[in-house]
Amino acid sequence: MLRKLREALKKDELTKASFQVEKIYPVDLAEFLVGIPSDKQDDLLEIISDEKLARIIENLAPEVKYKVLIKLDKERLKLILEYMSTDEIVDLLGNLPVGKSKELLALLRREYADLVKSFLGYAEETAGSLMTTEYIALKKNLTVKEAIRTIRKVSGQQEVIKYIYIVNDAKELVGYALLREILASQNDLTLDELYYPNVISTQARVDQEDVAMLIAKYDLTAIPVTTDHQQLIGVITVDDIIDVIEAENTEDMYKLAGINKVEKPLGSILTSMKERVPWLFINLGAAFLAAAVISQFEGIISKVVALTSFLPIVASLGGNSGNQALTIMVRNIALNEIDLETAKDVVIREVALGLINGAILGLVTASIAFIWKGNMTLGMIVGVTTVFNMMVANLLGVLIPLTLKYLKVDPALASSIFLTTLTDILGFFFLLGLATMLLNYLL
Amino acid sequence: MLRKLREALKKDELTKASFQVEKIYPVDLAEFLVGIPSDKQDDLLEIISDEKLARIIENLAPEVKYKVLIKLDKERLKLILEYMSTDEIVDLLGNLPVGKSKELLALLRREYADLVKSFLGYAEETAGSLMTTEYIALKKNLTVKEAIRTIRKVSGQQEVIKYIYIVNDAKELVGYALLREILASQNDLTLDELYYPNVISTQARVDQEDVAMLIAKYDLTAIPVTTDHQQLIGVITVDDIIDVIEAENTEDMYKLAGINKVEKPLGSILTSMKERVPWLFINLGAAFLAAAVISQFEGIISKVVALTSFLPIVASLGGNSGNQALTIMVRNIALNEIDLETAKDVVIREVALGLINGAILGLVTASIAFIWKGNMTLGMIVGVTTVFNMMVANLLGVLIPLTLKYLKVDPALASSIFLTTLTDILGFFFLLGLATMLLNYLL
Repeated sequence: MLRKLREALKKDELTKASFQVEKIYPVDLAEFLVGIPSDKQDDLLEIISDEKLARIIENLAPEVKYKVLIKLDKERLKLILEYMSTDEIVDLLGNLPVGKSKELLALLRREYADLVKSFLGYAEETAGSLMTTEYIALKKNLTVKEAIRTIRKVSGQQEVIKYIYIVNDAKELVGYALLREILASQNDLTLDELYYPNVISTQARVDQEDVAMLIAKYDLTAIPVTTDHQQLIGVITVDDIIDVIEAENTEDMYKLAGINKVEKPLGSILTSMKERVPWLFINLGAAFLAAAVISQFEGIISKVVALTSFLPIVASLGGNSGNQALTIMVRNIALNEIDLETAKDVVIREVALGLINGAILGLVTASIAFIWKGNMTLGMIVGVTTVFNMMVANLLGVLIPLTLKYLKVDPALASSIFLTTLTDILGFFFLLGLATMLLNYLL
Repeated sequence: MLRKLREALKKDELTKASFQVEKIYPVDLAEFLVGIPSDKQDDLLEIISDEKLARIIENLAPEVKYKVLIKLDKERLKLILEYMSTDEIVDLLGNLPVGKSKELLALLRREYADLVKSFLGYAEETAGSLMTTEYIALKKNLTVKEAIRTIRKVSGQQEVIKYIYIVNDAKELVGYALLREILASQNDLTLDELYYPNVISTQARVDQEDVAMLIAKYDLTAIPVTTDHQQLIGVITVDDIIDVIEAENTEDMYKLAGINKVEKPLGSILTSMKERVPWLFINLGAAFLAAAVISQFEGIISKVVALTSFLPIVASLGGNSGNQALTIMVRNIALNEIDLETAKDVVIREVALGLINGAILGLVTASIAFIWKGNMTLGMIVGVTTVFNMMVANLLGVLIPLTLKYLKVDPALASSIFLTTLTDILGFFFLLGLATMLLNYLL
């Protein structure tokens, strides 16, 4: 369909193109729109219905939204805004220059503009910034018949209809009912007999990551958002939460690799440089610390040059073993699977694993070293260092993220740099120190 | 509430306890159940309603499900199974010993057992293994009035009601309608005028990760599953997909750290050992390759011992810079953001970044080396090696995941071990080789 649309646009067959447009999903059209020349974009925008264009704009990348918006005149914009829900308009305004964002606000119906303005007050990455007002809330004394009549009247506009939220006269959320149960019930029952009082809800200022956790834990498709006084002010839908989950996961992975902000594979080079260089500098500083340890032992190295070959082995085994423990910790802290109570058991378990794995790897490393360099003492030193270093590495792999979590720093950030620096330094120190002590047997 | 429940159980006040149970969510009860002594578990199971117990069992960890199931007699089990949907029963059976799973199948109503058996045929981690049969499918010639009557009759049992799927006489999926739009429409319209023909669907044998991608891209709360002949056989709901997304993300993170299977922070030590040791052995082999490179240059090292200090610096800068590129690649391949078309631009961009960042870090490293060791040539060698190594590292950081993807291997797996081995080897070789060539100036 996209190919046909492309051809029709090329040949300026706009009627044919508009026929194709109808059959294509907004998110696919959004991708398509970005890839065609500017004059063809104008043609396309003209033949798209207002409602579909609203859906397309929602699906555009933030940096492209503005470019498309300025192609539209005020009248069109006004019509399109009518088709967007509050959370989408708020998102849109957040991506515009201040002047343009005020202009857009002016196009909204008065009461709607007030609502959007109040939503703009919520900090990014909080529940408030994600919520929509497209849900149905009813009072509990309605009968099923009245409820269905109301639902039929308003449902066309509402995004969330699986849950019907139940509120009291003060607009306080008191529970929820399932639409499917309302529909399946006798007409003369009241909602009072159908609704569930213990409703999982969240507050507007709660971090989006915590909201995602609630939705995932309780298998919800939408979660109501209230003020601190339990007044229902919005609902967050699961599709927005999936985006949050993917974004937070990407962020965690990037942080583990020393990238502070999520960067696009084809974003600006300068931005990427700014994000990555600081981490590389920290890493350089750390590497110089390890180098300084080696430098202290130049005496023994010049006597037993073979030791040099084992420096990268010790460093990399420790680093990788510790990194296994570290990744599991960071991930499970993020998934809320580890608390300070279970932490002690995790420490013991990881140190034990470091010891066992270290013993296996150490034995192999020692044997190879002995055969390779023909020196029993060298083999022993390398083996013992491996056991020691892997044990310490696993201990640090658990303790570093826990400490950062305790200090309320994101454990994903900077964990691995601390880990590798410390395991390098301790590994080198232990290997070369042991060699110095046993110098007489080494030569 | 959980505290009150705990107290009531302790004092054997079962009526009070059963009052508390009503107010607690199944997932929380599932967590609670696991944490209490076996005899209190028996008490608790007795006071829980069959429906709630069905929900609780769904929320138990796989390894605990069996332990709870064997506490129940056949009659109770039969009642509980009535409250579970096909995908949950299939999941349950998958976690049981074969004998027990047959026993359970025997408890199901005949037609239901056949359905479950056909579902058991789908491979793990495919769409087929995730789907449920609790959706509503209607024919398109129904009027709104008839549709609503049917929906009201069956909706009580159905999990998916946002979308009403439209099928033809051959049970082939031809489109979907939105319940909210049906409800908001005039009674005498037919579904034909309301339904959307271009429906996003998937096939039973499709990988769950691809299903997750579709749901996320098109913001769906459920996706229909069809046979290869477009016959509707089930629906996958978004709550199951969130679990898939979290699991796949965890898997990717773990693989990047060299852990093949997802392991629990407090799982069996033996299992963890088996998962982690192979990776450490591969790592050991790789480290010995790097060690062999160093060993080849023992002559120059014995003459210029100061070179040793710079080995970990070269290795760690290359490794970290490459790892930044690598993580971005792995993540964006997983999110489907990179195809072979854009890959070329990504390669160019990352190599440029490696060159720029390398130049900055190389200059600093060279200066420190010069000041520290008082040797201009040494500084120069270290600086040039840094630039070279970071450029190569970024190139490899892009090429390795792309190659693995092209070979249809998961790019997360083994990427980082290839990367660090290659950057270590090339870095050491370049540093020590350059030093050998410039030996006259070094001394």
